Amino acid sequence: MRQLTGQPLVYARANHPRFVAELKDFIRFPSVSAQPRHRDDMKRCAAWLARHLSEIGLEGVKVISTAGHPIVYAEWLRSPARPTLLIYGHYDVQPPDPVDEWRSPPFEPTLSGDDLFGRGASDDKGQMFAHIKAIECYLKTLGSLPVNVKCIFEGEEEIGSANLIPFLSQNSRELAADVAVMSDMRMLAPDRPALTYAMRGALSLEIEVRGQKVDLHSGIFGGAVHNPLQAMSEILASLHDRSGRVTIPNFYDRVRNVSDEERRYLARTGPTDEEILRDARAARGWGEPGFTLYERTTTRPALTINGITGGYEGPGVKAVIPVRALAKINFRLVADQEPEEIDLIFRRHIERVTPPTVRATVRTHFKARPARIDHRHPAMRAASAAYEKGFGAAPVFLRSGGTIPVVSVFKEMLRIPTVLMGFALPDDRLHAPNEKFHLPNFYNGIATSVWFMKEIAGGSANDHRLPLPRGKG
Amino acid sequence: MRQLTGQPLVYARANHPRFVAELKDFIRFPSVSAQPRHRDDMKRCAAWLARHLSEIGLEGVKVISTAGHPIVYAEWLRSPARPTLLIYGHYDVQPPDPVDEWRSPPFEPTLSGDDLFGRGASDDKGQMFAHIKAIECYLKTLGSLPVNVKCIFEGEEEIGSANLIPFLSQNSRELAADVAVMSDMRMLAPDRPALTYAMRGALSLEIEVRGQKVDLHSGIFGGAVHNPLQAMSEILASLHDRSGRVTIPNFYDRVRNVSDEERRYLARTGPTDEEILRDARAARGWGEPGFTLYERTTTRPALTINGITGGYEGPGVKAVIPVRALAKINFRLVADQEPEEIDLIFRRHIERVTPPTVRATVRTHFKARPARIDHRHPAMRAASAAYEKGFGAAPVFLRSGGTIPVVSVFKEMLRIPTVLMGFALPDDRLHAPNEKFHLPNFYNGIATSVWFMKEIAGGSANDHRLPLPRGKG
Repeated sequence: MRQLTGQPLVYARANHPRFVAELKDFIRFPSVSAQPRHRDDMKRCAAWLARHLSEIGLEGVKVISTAGHPIVYAEWLRSPARPTLLIYGHYDVQPPDPVDEWRSPPFEPTLSGDDLFGRGASDDKGQMFAHIKAIECYLKTLGSLPVNVKCIFEGEEEIGSANLIPFLSQNSRELAADVAVMSDMRMLAPDRPALTYAMRGALSLEIEVRGQKVDLHSGIFGGAVHNPLQAMSEILASLHDRSGRVTIPNFYDRVRNVSDEERRYLARTGPTDEEILRDARAARGWGEPGFTLYERTTTRPALTINGITGGYEGPGVKAVIPVRALAKINFRLVADQEPEEIDLIFRRHIERVTPPTVRATVRTHFKARPARIDHRHPAMRAASAAYEKGFGAAPVFLRSGGTIPVVSVFKEMLRIPTVLMGFALPDDRLHAPNEKFHLPNFYNGIATSVWFMKEIAGGSANDHRLPLPRGKG
Repeated sequence: MRQLTGQPLVYARANHPRFVAELKDFIRFPSVSAQPRHRDDMKRCAAWLARHLSEIGLEGVKVISTAGHPIVYAEWLRSPARPTLLIYGHYDVQPPDPVDEWRSPPFEPTLSGDDLFGRGASDDKGQMFAHIKAIECYLKTLGSLPVNVKCIFEGEEEIGSANLIPFLSQNSRELAADVAVMSDMRMLAPDRPALTYAMRGALSLEIEVRGQKVDLHSGIFGGAVHNPLQAMSEILASLHDRSGRVTIPNFYDRVRNVSDEERRYLARTGPTDEEILRDARAARGWGEPGFTLYERTTTRPALTINGITGGYEGPGVKAVIPVRALAKINFRLVADQEPEEIDLIFRRHIERVTPPTVRATVRTHFKARPARIDHRHPAMRAASAAYEKGFGAAPVFLRSGGTIPVVSVFKEMLRIPTVLMGFALPDDRLHAPNEKFHLPNFYNGIATSVWFMKEIAGGSANDHRLPLPRGKG
């Protein structure tokens, strides 16, 4: 097989400097999706990306308008007998704030040693660009790809992908593929690649507690009415028991037990409690008894309060009993918990624990199912082999506590699993000042993508075999 | 006695239109102590007031600079054998916000029927001006007052009287008096005057709960660390039991039981539960079992949360475990609770209930002792008789749930009780848009002040008798 990808990989190595120059051009667009003043920058960035995809030889390139920022689509479908790979990425970036803390301008990509600094360098421009360059390596040397490819690069990942979901549902037939790949996550270290095989689902809600109809003076009325802030504290405090378990009835009913074998694997390969606490800069752990911190954050569900507000929050004192208190609640769910069902039992529970002295209203913001790809899935085996060749090390299989909604959306709407193939490093400072991309990871990422396409095509054994179960996850 | 005050009262009636015109001039100063841009308005208002006090015949008039806004002092001490009355008021006003909701400009006093609209019309310019005009009525007719008088008019009542307290402690000898009077509170109705004989003390603190050292992603770390917002909710929820009693050990130890006789008086004269709930615009009462709402807000202590803040408070969702949560706590205390002692047991309790997974810090903002004046005190009898003559009705004796710190400060520093002689009405909209002063209350207030000075001097029985215990409360 090595000779088959020889030409693309030789081409890659010869063109590294140009690839980095192009990535810098890509990063220079201040494509901040959250900020309306960057609306034109978003358009210009999408147009640049589309032109680039045409130039490397992709076909059917389109910039698709949405109610928000455009989606860029491209394809190469000239191997009807081979599997189809959906490559996902996003060209929008987080706001660069706080700008003062950057050592180089966020949108003037700056090389320092092996690192390229700039907003979006790693999240996600650099990582998605590795796949784009891998495609170029094939098309400019062999004139073809080992698999069919459909690329979807969106401009709203950092603001919730609101327009991607209807686009996927309206075009599910055109977007049909066998497997998706995305590189928008971390490895453990430059020589420790990782494949995420499970992510938690999410359910975000807010609770509003209201009492009397007007703000009251806490001197004149203190002691006679049930303060909404106090009622809110009482409600929130009732959601966990002393041990750290969620008290909502039936909350754990559908939580699937992890096999002893998987628990041993997690214990052997995952971060220790000490490592997690060091990353969290926390002195002590907390949570559900009987599980490691890695398990509590990945195989077990969690309920977190993200914010509470109500009454006087300024300096000094204001003697007020406010009319309302508001709390933001975030669940992380694991298989087989259904966000809709948790939403329902949460609302029932809040109704039950709210005393008659106040009224509580629950609003749902966001739902995403837990997602999982079997690590023995052929695409995972392909990714694993590709990593070994691209980075010189077999990947660790990780569970993540986070949620990438697009993964469950691909599963639900396109019925395909997603390979989560990270090229970022833990210290890349995603979403923070001085974000960077480690260029050796860019180069190894390109090689990994080159190998991955080959592996998915069943290349190592037989170029014509299709190891991938088609059209289902 | 009626003939003795005949001349001052005739003078008062003849000059009502001029008195109202002067009060309008007083209200025109936008003397908003909280807003730095009104610093010069504060000075001009203080200068106007001082000049006015000189013009009516008061002596030793001084505008005393402080670290904040000036204090205006004036006196009349030409009756060494008579008691000395300290008249307190404040010329600063609340900000007029929200200005849009005013039907007439807040600093352009506007007459509508019997009501004078303007910021400060009732709180406190109009009420304090009634005493000033009563002094004028004596000095411009009889050339003397029936008692000695010392006036202290401060410019920082609405922002906590921070500079009044050191002024009082530095000048306690010069300010020696037998009793203080202030008119900065409500009656029950135009024909239902009221004397407040007890106010609750106050203790304002804030609790800050901190956990891990950096904000964390609630997906990646949710379930592994004790969220400061959750810990805060748990701490706050632990401060009351289900019945509404405060759970802090020893909190009720020093609470003095109210006699059955006083409870019967409160039940007979005070607002009913229904009236309090209607005023609060609350559907249901809450609080310590075994007491009426009037008692819960006056004879019983209370703990109120005035504000909670922490984490994400904006629209939508942010998946954060914040580093800190902050809550503002307000105690209202009753005799014989000492703010210092409650502060101490609260801090001990917070230390005890804070789990080792987070750290809690308590900061004290403000302390004031409960205050009480015996309703049989000669000055209260004098005030009662004065009200009967000024308003044609005997006053009700009220307990207030609020705190006027200067009352306990007068008690502690000058060792004198304060007669709380309100001329405001429940619908005067103190601190709110469209504040007004009911002019019949202004006129009856002037008459009541005229009678009060006479009564205090022991006038009704014998001009030379001193019914007042001197120099102690």
